[in-house]
Amino acid sequence: MTKQNTKPNILVVNDDGITATGIKNLMEVMQELGNVVVVAPDSPQSGMGHAITIGKPIRFDKVDLYPGVEMYKCSGTPVDCVKIAVNKIFKGKKPDLCVSGINHGLNNSINVIYSGTMSAAVEGAIEKIPSVGFSLDDFAQDADFSYCKKYIKTICEQVLEHGLPEATLLNVNFPKGNNIKGIKICRQANAKWAEEFEERTDPYKRPYYWLTGVFQNFDKGEDTDVWALEHNYASVVPVQFDLTAHHAIPILNGWSFNEENN
Amino acid sequence: MTKQNTKPNILVVNDDGITATGIKNLMEVMQELGNVVVVAPDSPQSGMGHAITIGKPIRFDKVDLYPGVEMYKCSGTPVDCVKIAVNKIFKGKKPDLCVSGINHGLNNSINVIYSGTMSAAVEGAIEKIPSVGFSLDDFAQDADFSYCKKYIKTICEQVLEHGLPEATLLNVNFPKGNNIKGIKICRQANAKWAEEFEERTDPYKRPYYWLTGVFQNFDKGEDTDVWALEHNYASVVPVQFDLTAHHAIPILNGWSFNEENN
Repeated sequence: MTKQNTKPNILVVNDDGITATGIKNLMEVMQELGNVVVVAPDSPQSGMGHAITIGKPIRFDKVDLYPGVEMYKCSGTPVDCVKIAVNKIFKGKKPDLCVSGINHGLNNSINVIYSGTMSAAVEGAIEKIPSVGFSLDDFAQDADFSYCKKYIKTICEQVLEHGLPEATLLNVNFPKGNNIKGIKICRQANAKWAEEFEERTDPYKRPYYWLTGVFQNFDKGEDTDVWALEHNYASVVPVQFDLTAHHAIPILNGWSFNEENN
Repeated sequence: MTKQNTKPNILVVNDDGITATGIKNLMEVMQELGNVVVVAPDSPQSGMGHAITIGKPIRFDKVDLYPGVEMYKCSGTPVDCVKIAVNKIFKGKKPDLCVSGINHGLNNSINVIYSGTMSAAVEGAIEKIPSVGFSLDDFAQDADFSYCKKYIKTICEQVLEHGLPEATLLNVNFPKGNNIKGIKICRQANAKWAEEFEERTDPYKRPYYWLTGVFQNFDKGEDTDVWALEHNYASVVPVQFDLTAHHAIPILNGWSFNEENN
């Protein structure tokens, strides 16, 4: 990584893999803002959450996909991509911005926790790099990401100008279709997936299971990301990685944990 | 899953795999408290975070490891184990308690986010099951988990008696060695891993990389899990899965996101 000028250095990652349309669109916006390095999985890694590769080694190679763009493919997870970029490319001199996506499919609400896209951005934030994850409500391989670009540029300009509050990153989701009304700052909606494992039988008469599910929103709030997206706003949720439920500490201190042990 | 009596139904999971010593110890404690069902990965899944298996099917089979214990091995991640247990074994009638572990190695501080053990417990909590993850500061295959058992029993008895605050689970870590002073309710310490990828060369002259790292604690607080463990207390951190950084919402509302778009 050579800093060619005073423009910001920007790390671009994703979870759909280095050949995904989403990361190409994100990379194109970032080229307008700074010096871009792309590090992405060599295969799709959706739903990888915050997984890291510790039981086996990883491969990491330079690739030449788009003219003039410094790009690397990595056999590891999205989080591995951020770790190896910081350690092996930026060599400790942190990038000024880490962006992840644009994911093929929403990462709103509870999806933030399963998402490789968002976990890569979380890892950027753990590394104290201002970080933003972007996702679009469209799973199609040929999804149209173009109309997200002006919003992505505005959001990243704001992040570069203001910085982000300590230990905070942004989770940005776009509704499908070119009629976005604007950007809304939201909280994560209280929702979950109701799983259903579809059982099939292989040619050897043994069962196997496909994970399927239905998204259940329990949250009627108009300040949530689910509400914003349903009303054609791009949702921006500030995300933290201190998972402590601070409000529960005084409750637990009232329990009898130590009676038997004192 | 047949409920044989009025004892609680308890789901036991882990990330070290179904043959790990840690899950055997946890299962033994749970047998004193209720009706036990074990669902665990068929191979080690450390560092899998909140990964789920969506690009390929999973296998799920009954096994007969310990006399009289209902056990299943699963080819998926720790989170998959919880999902398939809820859907295929408990069939929508949620267990009364979900415990994960005992992990071979600490899951304090930022490790909560990388840990398959803790992510399984988080998934239990998302499913509205009172859930607790347990970890011991000992990576050894023959680690001695026995002295953790009385604390695990006390903690689970308290959870079964009180329930847990909504959308909250517990992250319990034990120091190594049989001189635990008691249980401390803590917050997650502000710490991270400083990564170093060790480069090696394969027999075909191509490079590959092993993830290594050093744990860096930036937090001097005496109310953290790192402090408690260093002082030979078992640490109990209440954990939430609403990742919204609520304090950052008013800050972001002061930014100029929509100027260009209005």
